Amino acid sequence: MKLGPGEHTRVRRLPKKASYDADTIFAIFDEARFCHVAAVVDGVALALPTLHAREGDTLYLHASQSNAVLRAALAAGRVCVTATLYDGLRLARSGFESSIAYRSAVVVGTTLEVTDPEAKASILHSFVDAVLPGRAAEVRPMTAREQQLTLVVAVSVTEGSAKISAGPTDDFPEDLDLPIWSGVLPARLLFGDPQPSSDGAMATGEILLPTSVRRVLEGQQ
Amino acid sequence: MKLGPGEHTRVRRLPKKASYDADTIFAIFDEARFCHVAAVVDGVALALPTLHAREGDTLYLHASQSNAVLRAALAAGRVCVTATLYDGLRLARSGFESSIAYRSAVVVGTTLEVTDPEAKASILHSFVDAVLPGRAAEVRPMTAREQQLTLVVAVSVTEGSAKISAGPTDDFPEDLDLPIWSGVLPARLLFGDPQPSSDGAMATGEILLPTSVRRVLEGQQ
Repeated sequence: MKLGPGEHTRVRRLPKKASYDADTIFAIFDEARFCHVAAVVDGVALALPTLHAREGDTLYLHASQSNAVLRAALAAGRVCVTATLYDGLRLARSGFESSIAYRSAVVVGTTLEVTDPEAKASILHSFVDAVLPGRAAEVRPMTAREQQLTLVVAVSVTEGSAKISAGPTDDFPEDLDLPIWSGVLPARLLFGDPQPSSDGAMATGEILLPTSVRRVLEGQQ
Repeated sequence: MKLGPGEHTRVRRLPKKASYDADTIFAIFDEARFCHVAAVVDGVALALPTLHAREGDTLYLHASQSNAVLRAALAAGRVCVTATLYDGLRLARSGFESSIAYRSAVVVGTTLEVTDPEAKASILHSFVDAVLPGRAAEVRPMTAREQQLTLVVAVSVTEGSAKISAGPTDDFPEDLDLPIWSGVLPARLLFGDPQPSSDGAMATGEILLPTSVRRVLEGQQ
């Protein structure tokens, strides 16, 4: 499925880095551990970081009930959500062609508050798993009160684009023979040693590291 | 110096995580390898990733001359810029209290295009060093044409806030004795082995890894 080129998310610069393929765009959201959401609040367009979960071509955002940015996005009826992954450095022979290696995805979609308690419970469950796969089944069940305190917004994506900057550098032909090192310095996110809480039942030191955490640590070895 | 609480960037939720201290806010921008800038383009507030450089309480943004978001930010006379650092996971006993560990900074400032050639050259130099410290002195000098192709916008920060979520989890007292693992899983960005270009003079294999790259690799050991 193609999500563009759309009116708001068409890539104007460096179209060879652009993709409008839904799978490419949503894979970036799935890998991103947070996103940025934009909305006009009190006359200024703000970009704020937040968590996201996804089901098909719907992104979910959540916050406290009074969250100004999500309330503004609901009032506007649509919103832009952006996910960006930092993959390292692309070091060309010129500063002009040097930049970071990245994958970014920008989508615009219509907004709707999720109020149905069952749907909301299921989505909030998926937020816990979006932070750490498998964690939702390990924590204590959500209370009705917690669910009421949380605002959930569904963003039905209507258009989007991805921009991917990877691989060797694109130097100008006349720069290739300069005696200047050029290449890519890849970067990735690495989890370190878990820091267990020391309060409550954790003070006994008898509660084992859960499967969710073990799996993410094993996955990066 | 305090940059808030300001009209647009006051932290409304979890004020104990908030800081309005300029040094705290700018330290997050300095560590962030990219930022997100928000602006209204064709009736929709967009958040787009971009690079930034900083000098005092001025952030600099750059793009191609026709960049829609920066042109909109210039036309609006002010802009919001956001930097977010992902520090790992804060895993509480409840999903409600679980989230990511992060440091984010949101600033709003007035926008002005930098047109003076000398000032522009110096700022573009600092963008190369913002991507990788020391790199600007290693690449070939910028051409007048490259400088002309680039739009540089100065954002004089008028207000801002930081929000820092770190340390042990904040569980509800009634959850502390549950037999559920709780703790922090720290994360950091790690650079891998350099991937040298194989074209031009790099094909000889005789161009040594530059100081800028060696320093960043040594710094993470």
